[in-house]
Amino acid sequence: MKTALDCIPCFLRQTLEAVRVVSPDPAVHEKILREVLRWTAEMNLNESPPAVAQRIHRRIRELTGVTDPYRAAKDHWNQTALRLLPDLEAMVKDAADPLAMAVRLAIAGNIIDLGVNGSVTEADLHRAIRQALDEPFTGELEAFRTAVARAGNILYLADNAGEIVFDRLLIQQLAPARITVAVRGAPILNDATRDDARAAGLDQLFPIIDNGSDAPGMILKECSAEFRQRFDSADLIVAKGQGNFETLNDEPRDIFFLFKAKCSVVARHVGVPVGTQVIQRTRGGQ
Amino acid sequence: MKTALDCIPCFLRQTLEAVRVVSPDPAVHEKILREVLRWTAEMNLNESPPAVAQRIHRRIRELTGVTDPYRAAKDHWNQTALRLLPDLEAMVKDAADPLAMAVRLAIAGNIIDLGVNGSVTEADLHRAIRQALDEPFTGELEAFRTAVARAGNILYLADNAGEIVFDRLLIQQLAPARITVAVRGAPILNDATRDDARAAGLDQLFPIIDNGSDAPGMILKECSAEFRQRFDSADLIVAKGQGNFETLNDEPRDIFFLFKAKCSVVARHVGVPVGTQVIQRTRGGQ
Repeated sequence: MKTALDCIPCFLRQTLEAVRVVSPDPAVHEKILREVLRWTAEMNLNESPPAVAQRIHRRIRELTGVTDPYRAAKDHWNQTALRLLPDLEAMVKDAADPLAMAVRLAIAGNIIDLGVNGSVTEADLHRAIRQALDEPFTGELEAFRTAVARAGNILYLADNAGEIVFDRLLIQQLAPARITVAVRGAPILNDATRDDARAAGLDQLFPIIDNGSDAPGMILKECSAEFRQRFDSADLIVAKGQGNFETLNDEPRDIFFLFKAKCSVVARHVGVPVGTQVIQRTRGGQ
Repeated sequence: MKTALDCIPCFLRQTLEAVRVVSPDPAVHEKILREVLRWTAEMNLNESPPAVAQRIHRRIRELTGVTDPYRAAKDHWNQTALRLLPDLEAMVKDAADPLAMAVRLAIAGNIIDLGVNGSVTEADLHRAIRQALDEPFTGELEAFRTAVARAGNILYLADNAGEIVFDRLLIQQLAPARITVAVRGAPILNDATRDDARAAGLDQLFPIIDNGSDAPGMILKECSAEFRQRFDSADLIVAKGQGNFETLNDEPRDIFFLFKAKCSVVARHVGVPVGTQVIQRTRGGQ
């Protein structure tokens, strides 16, 4: 997905939110904001939004010396989600269609996205869970069910810390023995890394790999050779979150994207209202 | 008021909203957005937000050749407010404290600000009117009442089209014989000009002057000599809206500002939550 003009005000808001997480110094805030204004003035709009976010967050880390600014937020959300896990497991177990319930909850967990909204609260998460239960869900669920049953090996691309606890529920309903979970190779925003996979207990249940990259999405040409090989050889890719959608939706592969459409640009691209729970297959696969 | 870093993402959002009102051409949208990114990257943050908005909207008019992009929106809001006028007049007439009610309604009308929110709806206006009736109102109303009673001549600085119908109600409760109403000297956003004062029937009730400027606020050094003279000789200034607040709040004059705090920067400056109805006297006057 290319960058829309509407992404640019959002990059700038995100820049301010992110730099304030790591530095109390207004001079640092102003310096990075002016830099991002200069970059975006000349930017190539064919770049995906996560490529721009990657550059912004690299520069913030470089300027402030803080290598993992969202570590505390990630710990908070992992713990919050783990506290909810027994209730979520019961919801899946008691559901008439456990897979459908697990899909809905995994999408609800995608609300924990500090790139789109730096001030997400637990109330927002509970609202997303209620929405997951109450709203009609019209995505390609049956195609997803069939594709999962047919696939020999599945690569599950995780998105954010906290959210991966919700993913754990879904993966257990899919085909746990045939699934590998991929996380980011280095800290970026509140995206899940190997540390979060461990904190959420996923490493005890499934093979974990990382993509070797610090982009908040999957910029394949920057990912490690090992990840690329796993990506290319997977029968089916399941990708969580807007960042993975924005970087992979034009790939000629069979990919199911599961996310909440949290911003107007992505919602318009998919053709749904903002806030919609989306399960969408790429045009690449059949 | 200076420009906060948080104003900058908002300028860019406003740029896109405004240019889309007047041109369907994405190349024009991109051109002006890139220009504004370059300006704001190097901007002097001592400038007030309306000074930046003025520059953006001048450039949009220049690039598109459309001299009054918000004319249709202004007509719509004038007509909408005029339809409500009989009900609003009855609310003031029936109130235990008609002046307090008229102040509340005048502030409610300030929701019609297409700079802060380009997609304001009639539902938003009705919500603001209900808020005006229901919410406790703790501003400097008694000081305002006393200052109005004492002032020999009052200059009332209007803000937006549509909103000036609400102002008409308030001015009639104040001291209509001692009040002059000032509007913008040229089209800018949906700010009221002489055309809107006529459309709202204010020109039949009160003397109208314009400030000779196309800023969405009062940048005094750019206003006409005639306006400056009236401003300097007024016993009391009443100023509606955020734009007038942002440009005049540091003036050493006795000014009452009436507005809804619609953005986080202004709300923080005043020390209230976003959405609060504000009646605030400047530090300059006592």
